[in-house]
Amino acid sequence: MNYDIIVIGAGPGGYVAAEKAAKAGKKTLLIEKERLGGICLNWGCIPTKALLKSAQAYHYAEKAVEYGVSIEGEVKPDFAKMVERSRGVADQMNKGVEFLMNKSGVEVMFGTAKLNKDKSVAVTMADGSQNTETADHIILAVGAHSRQLPNLPQDGKHIIGYREAMTLAEQPKSMVVVGSGAIGSEFAHFYQTIGTQVTLVEFMPTIVPNEDKEVASTLQRCMKKNGMKVYTATSVDKVEVVNDKCIVTLSGKKTETLECDVVLSAVGVETNLAGLGLEDAGVAFERGKVTVDDYYQTDVAGIYAIGDIVKGPALAHVASAEAVVCVNHILGRETTPVNYNNIPGCTYTTPEIASVGLSEDKAKEQGYEIKVGKFMFMASGKATAAGNRDGFVKIVLDAKTDMILGCSMIGDNVTEMIEEIVVARQMNLTGKQILSTVHPHPTMSEAVMEALNTCYM
Amino acid sequence: MNYDIIVIGAGPGGYVAAEKAAKAGKKTLLIEKERLGGICLNWGCIPTKALLKSAQAYHYAEKAVEYGVSIEGEVKPDFAKMVERSRGVADQMNKGVEFLMNKSGVEVMFGTAKLNKDKSVAVTMADGSQNTETADHIILAVGAHSRQLPNLPQDGKHIIGYREAMTLAEQPKSMVVVGSGAIGSEFAHFYQTIGTQVTLVEFMPTIVPNEDKEVASTLQRCMKKNGMKVYTATSVDKVEVVNDKCIVTLSGKKTETLECDVVLSAVGVETNLAGLGLEDAGVAFERGKVTVDDYYQTDVAGIYAIGDIVKGPALAHVASAEAVVCVNHILGRETTPVNYNNIPGCTYTTPEIASVGLSEDKAKEQGYEIKVGKFMFMASGKATAAGNRDGFVKIVLDAKTDMILGCSMIGDNVTEMIEEIVVARQMNLTGKQILSTVHPHPTMSEAVMEALNTCYM
Repeated sequence: MNYDIIVIGAGPGGYVAAEKAAKAGKKTLLIEKERLGGICLNWGCIPTKALLKSAQAYHYAEKAVEYGVSIEGEVKPDFAKMVERSRGVADQMNKGVEFLMNKSGVEVMFGTAKLNKDKSVAVTMADGSQNTETADHIILAVGAHSRQLPNLPQDGKHIIGYREAMTLAEQPKSMVVVGSGAIGSEFAHFYQTIGTQVTLVEFMPTIVPNEDKEVASTLQRCMKKNGMKVYTATSVDKVEVVNDKCIVTLSGKKTETLECDVVLSAVGVETNLAGLGLEDAGVAFERGKVTVDDYYQTDVAGIYAIGDIVKGPALAHVASAEAVVCVNHILGRETTPVNYNNIPGCTYTTPEIASVGLSEDKAKEQGYEIKVGKFMFMASGKATAAGNRDGFVKIVLDAKTDMILGCSMIGDNVTEMIEEIVVARQMNLTGKQILSTVHPHPTMSEAVMEALNTCYM
Repeated sequence: MNYDIIVIGAGPGGYVAAEKAAKAGKKTLLIEKERLGGICLNWGCIPTKALLKSAQAYHYAEKAVEYGVSIEGEVKPDFAKMVERSRGVADQMNKGVEFLMNKSGVEVMFGTAKLNKDKSVAVTMADGSQNTETADHIILAVGAHSRQLPNLPQDGKHIIGYREAMTLAEQPKSMVVVGSGAIGSEFAHFYQTIGTQVTLVEFMPTIVPNEDKEVASTLQRCMKKNGMKVYTATSVDKVEVVNDKCIVTLSGKKTETLECDVVLSAVGVETNLAGLGLEDAGVAFERGKVTVDDYYQTDVAGIYAIGDIVKGPALAHVASAEAVVCVNHILGRETTPVNYNNIPGCTYTTPEIASVGLSEDKAKEQGYEIKVGKFMFMASGKATAAGNRDGFVKIVLDAKTDMILGCSMIGDNVTEMIEEIVVARQMNLTGKQILSTVHPHPTMSEAVMEALNTCYM
């Protein structure tokens, strides 16, 4: 059948694109090989947040006495229940996307799509049957999967990726997590909090290597306080499975061998370009990323690509933003290209991390003359009342223009606070302009004001 | 002794003013009759947030099984411990202010201050001795106290105010809370959550009467789900104490009599102007508020007033903002007057409430042609993962200019989200400009984007 728009992949890039296109009256087909909502909703952002909420509830129960709550019996994590709840949350959101697609008139087809030479799309269904679909515009939004390292070959049982990490049959007693980006750090935090002995191994000199160094050291300190072992500047040479245990050989300052039940490989993602027929259709790509312009047009007219498979960070909110720009462009509507210098990033450990723009070090590297404002949550009334005073807000200003070069936050609920800075940066507001606003008391968000205050003493 | 600046009252208005003045090199005296930090820190914002955190911890422990946490024994609130923790938090913050005052070189004097005719300040110390101090500039920041109604005479035992409500010797079995503003609603939520049978009585047709009507009805529904009884459009005719019980006579749609252990009067605050010597010094005031200009100058040269005792909402963050403007003005520094149309307000119930600007109804009343965008947290991945999907974000736009007239939020952590809108409004950003930014996923703050999206279909 011929459509106005075919979207391949139903993650946060694809389903947002399909919904927007269909709502604008376009005959839209969304092809998905697995589940609506993609990795983010089914195997990423959402179910991990559910697990982390369970860990938080467990933490509160463990520390209940500090808050004036008396619990007589033992507090234990019910791992199977946590996993079940997390899957339930994913299912619920998955049904939500199904509802959205129906409501907006998107036709959904479950199958594996491949571009043909003539720009038609071949779809192989679960039963092996084949459909061929055509459209004026095809949006590729096929996402990515857990990256495989040769020295960490995932077997799904002893050496696992993020998917298995959220659906293990039983809670491991010990775990080595390789890679301390958002995925690695979040799983490490989850498992350590509910009682697994976790060792987090990072190749770079600091954990969460994309974040401000003080943020990294604060998180590392909190992780250690929580009982986690953290190795930085350390690589995993090999993992051997002996008697159902993993023997992990590390090399860093010294060579060391660890034994654990499970190794989680969280060393990034690889795009799902294989088998997509890009070569057949003549769509250019380089090092795993499809080449696109600011409106996500590939060099083949009528074929677009968004999300993890194009330049920019592989984040759900980036994919959704790209979907909006791409579809607006197809619809001939005015649209503002995504500002890749202003993408917030979040890590949902305890404390949480949120940041946008340049870190202090990166701003210096880029030659800016900077002013740095910082406020520790230790001095915050809200943080003290909440019983979690870890972390801080750090704002990096351009000393010449007073523009906000970047902001790094670590603390309770900071992921809900970063948007203030994103909006300010998008509109080129100065530090003084933010200071002219009133921040509500008592909130963690006051720390933005307090941090800025220290810049104008 | 003669000072550059004397500040009377060490609440969030006074101590911020004193710190700023001293840091600028001014010889500064801060006079406080009770405790540094004032009501906010000792008897308001901060200790109540500590109590509410205890209630949240208790709630998590009670619902632990839903999150996959198994608790064998009974979960009970330890009321005395909750109060003790809350007092500890207040003490800690009080010491923080003491530290700040020392560090910035503010001289602190504990005593009761009164203006003399000659603009000198008479200070009566705890031991009855008297000091007389003078200054070029005197800032009055004496705050307010719980309002007494003739039919609700507070005796501190059966009929109490907010101070007693946070330090009761034992948890009442039943409580009637009169007034559903932030203070009343927060205490009602706290006590109901930890097991007291609470009846909340509001004179106006909706609870939290300053908030959007749908926000009010959502909070009321959540309160009822939590077991609370809520009466709106109802007044308290009288309270009689019989056999250690309060007999509360209500009149509304019908006359009714309730019995309870304690009645909390939360019907607003009254300014502390009595005994301040305003008449002697010739400082004008009207209906309990000192008359000031945009820089908080009274009509007596060199005497200023900030905080609850001047126009504008009686909120800690407003007092602090006024302190900054007032001291900047005294210092001869450029300063932007406080924008009273852009003051966020927060209520720390569960769900939380945060709002700024005009509600939908008020915008209509003022004759605006409006567009309203709304997103229910029921459809939010973060809210679903957290297990609390109550609430929504509602944004009211001027249909002609696309400016943000107001925003009302109710849901988990919305008090940390409102500042995005405050900043946007302060800078006159449009709804479309906010939409051009990327909101991180998965957060509650995405609801701002989703709500705005519905305005441009």
